[in-house]
This record gives sequence, C-alpha cells and structure tokens, in this order.
Amino acid sequence: MNFELLKKDPKSKARAGKITTDHGEIETPIFMPVGTAGTVKAVHQRELKEEVKAEIILGNTYHLYLRPGLDVIESAGGLHKFNGWDRPMLTDSGGYQVYSLKDRRKITEEGVRFQSHLDGSKHNFTPENVMDIQRTIGADIMMAFDECTPYPCDKKYAKDSMEMTHRWLKRCCDRFDATAPKYGYDQTLFPIVQGSTYHDLRTQSAETIASFGREGNAIGGLSVGEPAEMMYESTDLVCSILPEDKPRYLMGVGTPSNLIECIALGVDMFDCVLPTRNARHGMIYTSEGIINIKNEKWEKDFSPIDPNLAGHVDMNYSKAYLRHLIRTGEMLGAQIASIHNLSFYLWLVKEARAHILQGDFASWKNTILPKLSTRL
Amino acid sequence: MNFELLKKDPKSKARAGKITTDHGEIETPIFMPVGTAGTVKAVHQRELKEEVKAEIILGNTYHLYLRPGLDVIESAGGLHKFNGWDRPMLTDSGGYQVYSLKDRRKITEEGVRFQSHLDGSKHNFTPENVMDIQRTIGADIMMAFDECTPYPCDKKYAKDSMEMTHRWLKRCCDRFDATAPKYGYDQTLFPIVQGSTYHDLRTQSAETIASFGREGNAIGGLSVGEPAEMMYESTDLVCSILPEDKPRYLMGVGTPSNLIECIALGVDMFDCVLPTRNARHGMIYTSEGIINIKNEKWEKDFSPIDPNLAGHVDMNYSKAYLRHLIRTGEMLGAQIASIHNLSFYLWLVKEARAHILQGDFASWKNTILPKLSTRL
Ligand SMILES: [Zn+2]
Ligand SMILES: [Zn+2]
Repeated sequence: MNFELLKKDPKSKARAGKITTDHGEIETPIFMPVGTAGTVKAVHQRELKEEVKAEIILGNTYHLYLRPGLDVIESAGGLHKFNGWDRPMLTDSGGYQVYSLKDRRKITEEGVRFQSHLDGSKHNFTPENVMDIQRTIGADIMMAFDECTPYPCDKKYAKDSMEMTHRWLKRCCDRFDATAPKYGYDQTLFPIVQGSTYHDLRTQSAETIASFGREGNAIGGLSVGEPAEMMYESTDLVCSILPEDKPRYLMGVGTPSNLIECIALGVDMFDCVLPTRNARHGMIYTSEGIINIKNEKWEKDFSPIDPNLAGHVDMNYSKAYLRHLIRTGEMLGAQIASIHNLSFYLWLVKEARAHILQGDFASWKNTILPKLSTRL
Repeated sequence: MNFELLKKDPKSKARAGKITTDHGEIETPIFMPVGTAGTVKAVHQRELKEEVKAEIILGNTYHLYLRPGLDVIESAGGLHKFNGWDRPMLTDSGGYQVYSLKDRRKITEEGVRFQSHLDGSKHNFTPENVMDIQRTIGADIMMAFDECTPYPCDKKYAKDSMEMTHRWLKRCCDRFDATAPKYGYDQTLFPIVQGSTYHDLRTQSAETIASFGREGNAIGGLSVGEPAEMMYESTDLVCSILPEDKPRYLMGVGTPSNLIECIALGVDMFDCVLPTRNARHGMIYTSEGIINIKNEKWEKDFSPIDPNLAGHVDMNYSKAYLRHLIRTGEMLGAQIASIHNLSFYLWLVKEARAHILQGDFASWKNTILPKLSTRL
C-alpha cells in the first residue's frame, strides 16, 4: 500500500491524498460503504461501482468468519473472488461485534471467547488468529484486534483496556509480519488508537500506535454515544499526533456533518452503517438536507430524490415513488434509498476533496454544513 | 392495440405473434413479471428492461388502489409515470385478491364489498368502478372484473358464478366503451373465460367471451390447485374456441413446464408470481433444471448460476455466493435470484418463440421439457 499526500487545506487540517493498493486507487478523503456479510445490503456490486462510485468497501470479520466461513472464502480464492468486488476492501477485526455480544463473551489477556449469535457455538478470537482470519478473507487493509471501550467508561477501565490493546497490537504485528498474503496481492495492517474520551490516554495511545510505524492508522472507540464535540476534540488531538504521511481512518463515523467536521481535522477514511441503515427506514440524505420520506409532504412530490445528484436512481425515481415503496415495505425502496444515500456520501467526500484541491474547502464547509443537518 | 399472428407451428398449436401498444411492442409468446404494488419485487426498472428483458409487466389493481391510492397515481399522470416503467403494462381487475380476503368480503350481483387487509377500511369493487380504477391506473391492457372460482368447485356454484361473470363482463364493456383513456394513450380490455374444470361450462364461457369481440381474451380460474393435466385440458379446449387472430392470456400460470405445455396449446401470454416468490426462497430455475440453492452441494460451487444465460447476474455472481446471501437472509440474495429467475422465464419464452418461428418448436419442446423439471 502506498499513500500520497497531494494537498493540505490552508485554513483547516483537511487534506487530499491517494492510496494505492493492488486492487486499485482510493482518493482520500473517502467514505467506505459497509458490506457486513460480503454484501453492501440491497446494493449490487455493479451499482456500488457505477452508481455509488465506491472505491473501497468494508467487510465484517465476525460475520464472514461465521458465514460463509473461512473454508468457503478460501476455496473461492478470497472475498474479492467470492463476492465479485474487485476493488479495494478493508476488514475490521471482529472485535466490535464480539464485544456487543455482552453476556456471551469473555475478554482475557489471551483474547476473547464468545458464543455465536447464530447457534451458540463457542469460538476464540485472539490477536494472532484474527490476523490469520483476515489473511484468509483477503482484505487489502486489515485491522488490528483491539478492545473498543464503551461510553461512558471509567478511567481505570479505559487505561487498562488501552494498555491491553497496545499489547495485543504487538502480537498482531508479530503475527502479521510473520505471515504472507494468500492470494498474491499485498495486504497491510492498520493499528487502532483507543483511550476513550481521556485526553491523556488518547495522547498516549496515539503516540504508541504511531511508534509502530504501520502504513496507516485508525482511530477507534469514538462515535459510541459521546457528544459530537467530545468526538471532535479526541479526533483533533489524535490527528495532531498521528503521522501526516499516512492515512488516518476514523472508525464508525458518521453523519454527513460528522464527516465534514472530521475531514477538517485531518481524517482521510470513514465507514458507517448510517447511510444504509437509515435508508432502509426512509431517512434520506440530500444536498439540501435530510428527508423523512415517510412524511405525508412527499406523497405527491414527483421530483427527483436529489436533483443535485446525477446518478441513476435520482434520475429515474421520484420522492413520491420512493415514499410509496418504503411505506409498503417493498425491497425496491430499500434498494433505491441505499443506493441514493451511499451515492450522497460518496458525492459529499468527493466534493470535499475537490474543494481541498482547489483551496476553498473552509468556505465550502461553511456553506454545506447548515444544509447537511436541515430537516426538509 | 394490435395483434399480428406471425407463424403457426406445424406440429402443435403454438404460435408466434406480435402485440403493438402505444408503449411499444410485445413479442408473443410472452411472460409478464408481476409488479404487485407498482414494483417487481427486488428488481429495478432498469434491470427489468436491460437484464430480464421484460416487455410487459403486470400490476395488481387491489394493491395499487389501496397504496399509493388512485389520487397519487392520477397526480403522477398514471402508473407508468409514477414508477418509471415506460413499456406496456397490464393490470388485473383486483378480483382475485379480493376473493382471497375470505371472511372479509361479500359477493353480490352488484359487485364485491370488502375490507382492506391493511386497516379494515370498507370498499366496493363493481364491474363499473373497476374499469374506472384501471382507467386511472392507466394500464395498456385492462382486465374485466370476474369471479375466479376455487378448485374444487361444485358445478352449481361454477355455473352460477360463470353466468354472473358474463353479466359483469357486459357491464365492464359498457363502462369501458363509455369512457376514455386519461393519459393520451390507448387502453384495451380483455374479458376472462371461467367455468372451473367443467368442459361444458368452459365451452359455454369461451363462446360467450369470444362473442364480445374484444382485442384479446384471457383464461382465468386455472392453476388454482387442480392437477396439471386438468389445466392443460381446459386450456386446450378454451384455446380451440377463442379466436385465432387475438392474443390469449392464461392467467397466473405457472412453472416453466406449464409455460411450454400451454404455449403448445396456443397460449400467447402468461403471468405468475412463482419465479420471484420462489427466488426469494432460494429456488432457482435454470436451463439445466431446478436448484435449491440452500442445499449444501452448492456451498463451494463457484460456477455461474446458469452458464447458458448471458445476463449480468449470471456473469457476475456464483452459485456459492448466492447460496451465502439467501442463507443469511441478505436482500442482495433475493435481488439476484429474482433477476435470474425472471431472466430465465423470459429466455424460455424467447427460445420457444424462436423455435416456433424456425419451425422446430415440437422437437425443441421434447428436448427442453425433461430438463425443466429436473432437480439438480
Ligand atoms: Zn456509525
Ligand atoms: Zn402462479
């Protein structure tokens, strides 16, 4: 993997860059649609490419490990071959899903013992086997196995957890460096900054993570319920410590406003289930504001979903039709809304990038931000 | 509407023809995907055109009348404008859905009083207002309001019902002929032959329906639980009476084998929910036979869903991937399987048509039929 920093915004910490992987290039800042079980819900791979214009998607190690299972993925020749997505992919470590199993998992220094939410079967995730699993899945970018602390989190727990995450990172790196990719293309490993909302812990963690010298770095444990201001503070602090010449990935963030604010703080990569999950419930993000498509006001609005987006769904379906589909629970509603929301997110980061490159990001940010949270 | 009979098969009653509507041409024999609520479930309109190659789709009057409602459809300028499908459309009369409400409907000479399955609200369908409703929906082909008898059905009920259907047909035609299309393009009305499985009633009904001299005719009340042989006998009988120079539409049929057998009896048009409903449950129709994609034997089968079909989903997704998606309940599974099954149905009728035109339909039929019901 290679990262090229192309331009820094003069009035903020925003930057435009380019990541090169064996599966192609990623222009940053970028948003990565979440493809939980090897599929971005309700969206065809071709639509992801041609309409959404996604450059990289994310897969969930926990879900893929359980179904279809490593045996099937390896037989296929990796996840790219299995699901037909031939552009870059990133996999999380499975940690986040495993912790949310709550009373079905136990965390020790060794790793996590958990029971499948599907059949109660027992499994172990350790820093080492999570590297092996991601090697087998075959993501271009693999994530370190960490503990993502909840919010609020008392300081003692946050500190102990962060230190374990750092010890686990050493084990992840050792295993990663001792193993080879399985499918002939390069893989890289991103470590994850933790430390909850404590500035001293965040500082310590960012310094530790930076010291590992990997090709990119991630910020975890945010957007877990803390106020947005707190998230921005932690992100700002961590970005000021993480090396400038490597991509910074803010995990699980966020709303369109969150993206713009965090791009301004120096973040390069995002992922979030919001655009697709909200799409399925009829919350539509547009360049003029947020639409609850179930509202009666859209009943006879035969205008495009977002007239500023030129994609196929926006050219061919109206708000009134989308409203009808969502209200009747028709799958096509989720399909259209998911493509639309993802297209919007990708449009938004592309706009941000264009304005960084042409040097007027800060003024564009001031124009777009109020629109992004307007309720239409 | 215009129907041109292009070729008759020398060894069967199969025929190839062409229907011309203001929304374009339909090459017969044809299969019409069912778009219940203004959407063929899980399939984009563009996919219907470019991948499935559907030439006409069907809408359900009952569902559209309830949601989005006539007011919305009329404001949009008709269903074509509302859902963005600009090729021919056919609407059923709503009768079939209303009868299946069982204890929530009452049939009288006047029409049917029923309660919505959604909110219990009370409504009336009469031969007259069902014409008005279909005028408002704006289908190219409208269907007469009939009573579709169940199987088995005692002869007295079948006869009385058929006679009422004939009286209703007179009322439908009177209303249809006294009203004009609302959106500037032509609409036509097909009457429906009933008579259950009684040959004398079917004969009487077919003669009566033919005597109305409409532009096309339909065969109803079949594929409602009777043995396939009985369905073929009735279809054969009715086709022998219905005029040769008008298209014949066999409603609600059926499996791939049913289609081929009934094409051989002189049927030109079909609709059925089977390909899409079964798709969602993982039953995949292919040119080599029927696949239950949930079976373990497909777990590591990375070959195309149907190597004989050249469509996008068959070129880009494997059986193993589709199996994974259907097993995990991912929407993309239903999407892929629906496009595939519909593509297969359209491929099948196109193949039938090509063989009718080149004069070897009967021998092709003998080759394809055993494959169509093979369980792979
Ligand atoms: Zn999120
Ligand atoms: Zn059927």
